[in-house]
Amino acid sequence: MKLDALVFDAYGTLFDVHSVMRRCEAGWPGKGAALSAAWRAKQLEYTWQRSLMRAYRPFSEVTRDALAYCCEAMGLALSSAQTEDLMQEYRRLALFPDVVDALQKLPGKKAILSNGSPDILDPLVKQSGLRFDAVLSVDELKVFKPAPEVYALAVKRLGVEADRIGFVSSNCWDALGAKVFGFNVFWINRTGAPVDRLGPKPDAILKSLGDLPEVLR
Amino acid sequence: MKLDALVFDAYGTLFDVHSVMRRCEAGWPGKGAALSAAWRAKQLEYTWQRSLMRAYRPFSEVTRDALAYCCEAMGLALSSAQTEDLMQEYRRLALFPDVVDALQKLPGKKAILSNGSPDILDPLVKQSGLRFDAVLSVDELKVFKPAPEVYALAVKRLGVEADRIGFVSSNCWDALGAKVFGFNVFWINRTGAPVDRLGPKPDAILKSLGDLPEVLR
Repeated sequence: MKLDALVFDAYGTLFDVHSVMRRCEAGWPGKGAALSAAWRAKQLEYTWQRSLMRAYRPFSEVTRDALAYCCEAMGLALSSAQTEDLMQEYRRLALFPDVVDALQKLPGKKAILSNGSPDILDPLVKQSGLRFDAVLSVDELKVFKPAPEVYALAVKRLGVEADRIGFVSSNCWDALGAKVFGFNVFWINRTGAPVDRLGPKPDAILKSLGDLPEVLR
Repeated sequence: MKLDALVFDAYGTLFDVHSVMRRCEAGWPGKGAALSAAWRAKQLEYTWQRSLMRAYRPFSEVTRDALAYCCEAMGLALSSAQTEDLMQEYRRLALFPDVVDALQKLPGKKAILSNGSPDILDPLVKQSGLRFDAVLSVDELKVFKPAPEVYALAVKRLGVEADRIGFVSSNCWDALGAKVFGFNVFWINRTGAPVDRLGPKPDAILKSLGDLPEVLR
């Protein structure tokens, strides 16, 4: 398959949020895995609910709100300092080990398209050392994925038609939202999860980003 | 507080989905609670994601899809007969014990406003024996809660202004979506959950529907 541009999701696709879990475990021993899973789920819920309610707030704020909710629900004390430490972690997440090599081998324009607001997304990309043709945030649209206007932003900014763009995400619902919009989609399914029942299927399901250069050869 | 109409959410607010959990437990011993919790969470995710993707499908179909996903994710075999048994359960859910008495005491127009599609919602309301001035489904709008057009449907159909309507839900995000829209909202918090961090607060938080007649006296 020959494409003119690749658009990547950030969190969970290029960047590993495991260090957030480790920091949760350090703060609340024995509860780190449960808290970080609940936090991630609530963070996404809030992005969808706020989008539908037309009550957008930046991802950094939604992420803080979700943490506060989950700590209250689990009966865990949460200080402002702990909140800021965890949010700081979002600005320095590690890359998955397959990212640097894969990106070097991939041809065409490359961009990030993320729910992340610039206050946390830009420092994260900068510290990674990766170079992209564009780092696009939903923040200017005031709506989160998987709204079609989010995917349309990449078409507009890259100047490449949707059917010449490959969209790469580890979040199946994000990949399928991009598929409904009209991208070619590659679902990076590192955990062996089932395909979400949202209508379409991904064009390809890969276990690792490292498999992508071969598919696009 | 004097209001002209009350609008109720259905699932989890008037109708207890516990019997679905019991049936899950009978089908997959030891897994009933985990499956039904995952099923409910995925069902809601799909309503939000499909709404944002502009890929609406009726709630009965979304509910079947979510069940199929969760069974695959948990490694549980699921037959068509089991799916239909569980969907049939959705048509005969029990009322919470506080519903009949509370509804009798409440003045003004009363309506249901539900994500449920008519194929499962109408038989459910009919078998309950309850009478409403309107049973409204999002199905005609092709978008799910908490989109504002859903709440606007109640205003239009009841012929009552938003600020004269009380909206009653056990789902905090639903109550807060209705609050953003402009209703007076009563969150029935039977489980002692935290308030969702989505901006506004409910006008009142009640432990039981039985407390509502007193608040509206």
